[in-house]
Amino acid sequence: MTRIANFNAGPAALPLPVLQKAQAELIEFGSYGMSIMEMSHRSKQFMAICDETVANIKSLMGISDEYEVLFLQGGASLQFAMIPMNLLLPGQTADYVHTGAWAGKAIKEAKLIGNVNTIWDNKAEKYTRAPRAGELQFTPGAAYVHICSNETIGGIRFPEFPTTEAPLIADMSSEIMSREIDVNQFGMIYGGAQKNIGPSGMALSIIKKELIERCPDTVSVFLRYKTHSEEKSLYNTPNTWAIYIIKLVTEWMIENGGIKAMQKVNEEKAGMLYNILDSSTFWTPVAQKDCRSIMNICWTLQNEELEEKFVKEAKVAGMEGLKGHRSVGGIRASIYNAVPLAAVQQLADFMKEFEKKNG
Amino acid sequence: MTRIANFNAGPAALPLPVLQKAQAELIEFGSYGMSIMEMSHRSKQFMAICDETVANIKSLMGISDEYEVLFLQGGASLQFAMIPMNLLLPGQTADYVHTGAWAGKAIKEAKLIGNVNTIWDNKAEKYTRAPRAGELQFTPGAAYVHICSNETIGGIRFPEFPTTEAPLIADMSSEIMSREIDVNQFGMIYGGAQKNIGPSGMALSIIKKELIERCPDTVSVFLRYKTHSEEKSLYNTPNTWAIYIIKLVTEWMIENGGIKAMQKVNEEKAGMLYNILDSSTFWTPVAQKDCRSIMNICWTLQNEELEEKFVKEAKVAGMEGLKGHRSVGGIRASIYNAVPLAAVQQLADFMKEFEKKNG
Repeated sequence: MTRIANFNAGPAALPLPVLQKAQAELIEFGSYGMSIMEMSHRSKQFMAICDETVANIKSLMGISDEYEVLFLQGGASLQFAMIPMNLLLPGQTADYVHTGAWAGKAIKEAKLIGNVNTIWDNKAEKYTRAPRAGELQFTPGAAYVHICSNETIGGIRFPEFPTTEAPLIADMSSEIMSREIDVNQFGMIYGGAQKNIGPSGMALSIIKKELIERCPDTVSVFLRYKTHSEEKSLYNTPNTWAIYIIKLVTEWMIENGGIKAMQKVNEEKAGMLYNILDSSTFWTPVAQKDCRSIMNICWTLQNEELEEKFVKEAKVAGMEGLKGHRSVGGIRASIYNAVPLAAVQQLADFMKEFEKKNG
Repeated sequence: MTRIANFNAGPAALPLPVLQKAQAELIEFGSYGMSIMEMSHRSKQFMAICDETVANIKSLMGISDEYEVLFLQGGASLQFAMIPMNLLLPGQTADYVHTGAWAGKAIKEAKLIGNVNTIWDNKAEKYTRAPRAGELQFTPGAAYVHICSNETIGGIRFPEFPTTEAPLIADMSSEIMSREIDVNQFGMIYGGAQKNIGPSGMALSIIKKELIERCPDTVSVFLRYKTHSEEKSLYNTPNTWAIYIIKLVTEWMIENGGIKAMQKVNEEKAGMLYNILDSSTFWTPVAQKDCRSIMNICWTLQNEELEEKFVKEAKVAGMEGLKGHRSVGGIRASIYNAVPLAAVQQLADFMKEFEKKNG
């Protein structure tokens, strides 16, 4: 076994016990004589897997029966389009908060569908922070308020969530289930699965039932939340493999103390790296201090050559995925739930050595 | 190992050597120290997997450079909406051929988007056949002509494909890569992966490049073929696991003689079952003779009780997935590429015994 320390932004590290279980039962699941991938999505055994996964998510996040938990294809990118299609009716306006690359993509899709009011845009500060308490001015009667609670590329997150009259919708792709939140603050929470909860090819959408009713019947049947809600995510063949892996990941989370315990370790991991970044001018953290993500830690070095050297030498030392996103450069360490404390310790040790040699 | 004979309609049987390979490298792929599921979709190694999979498909199906091969999420069901969104412009009409449940779903989605002319509908004959040569009257100047080349639920297929002036678009979900076809007859071929080529959560779309240009910029960025074509299926994070499994399946197909060899075995398998169905009035095949699918073999028995008995006893004898679709009842054996000849032989032997005991 030569598993490396994996800091990929997504698809990203999965817990080793999850991979081991998936490997053990890949060819024959239980006593069913077939692989999960070969199993009908309408079979009793697969529907049980689906139900258990939903139950695990509801229990972990404390989701009440006022919400539906849906497994949808297309990742967060399709949600960017489905949200305004379903929830932004003609004549209405939706408020969007522009915090970086992913919020920007959501805004672009929404503008193709309806009236969008970008109520906050951090372009002038190069998207290095989220809005602070009291900074947002909402449109009266807005259809909803959309935020990206954690920007994977910029490495920022909301210090606290805004209080809104309209339903608050959050893209939580990069931080879903990484820290405790109060789901009741939100009309909808969604995210691509490939960061904290499973493999790619799946979005998890947690939507208040009363919002699901809003969607007009003129929208494509497949693109209506109502369709997937009525059919419990089995309107058409879902990504069964991803649902199964999410089941294993959520079981692993429950066995390891749930989200509270994940958050504790995540804060410890992030603290380890931010402490180094704050310790010397050799490092320049990207995010403003009160808006730092504990999932995606981004920084720059004095110049690109040094950054390249860092990534290259880290790779040789057994650490992968540290190159910043192609659109912004720099270094990024994504330290999702499944990235072990030991891997982050390894990175921290490497950083100290690297500074000694190059500082 | 107690693998059973799997006649599921989809998700369906996968080749055992594919499952064995996927199992062996699930935790560590090659020398990369991580699972395929943990690998960045923009890494050199994953992009190589993606390119090889496209190359395998092009080589197997004889696809020219006039076509793009795209991996899209949402299965065929999302394609039902994307096709008219991209290719049916305001003022145009698209011709649809109604051959059963799946053609019907495609028609329903298209009607929400533009003008649809259902040029043929086999409702009167309960969708037991496809149109025969010369039977179709096309709309002059139609945007395209849509067919479902093989109806999974009804077990019928086109005896031959119509010659059309407008681009011919075919949902081939249940028969893609099961028999030799001339791709050049089509403007677009698409299908959910979960029958003949891989796991669920993926559609394969093979589209003529000139058609891709048609899509208006008013359509959601994610729902444009242009977006996925320009980014070579990597606009957003694709279902990387499904692409990897499709790579293994196409390698297995190439090693086993390609589509020509698959077709030969498939015809032998189908012949084995149809011979029994034609041999006695104990069995009633559903599809009309010249339109019989070689992938989904559907039949009924004298009454529902006998059908239930058949399914139950087959299960005890190690055969799964034989219950007909809940919308039509009866018996269905889906015998895709990955269902071995021996499994079909087992079913044939069981059928003969069952007739002896119950005939």
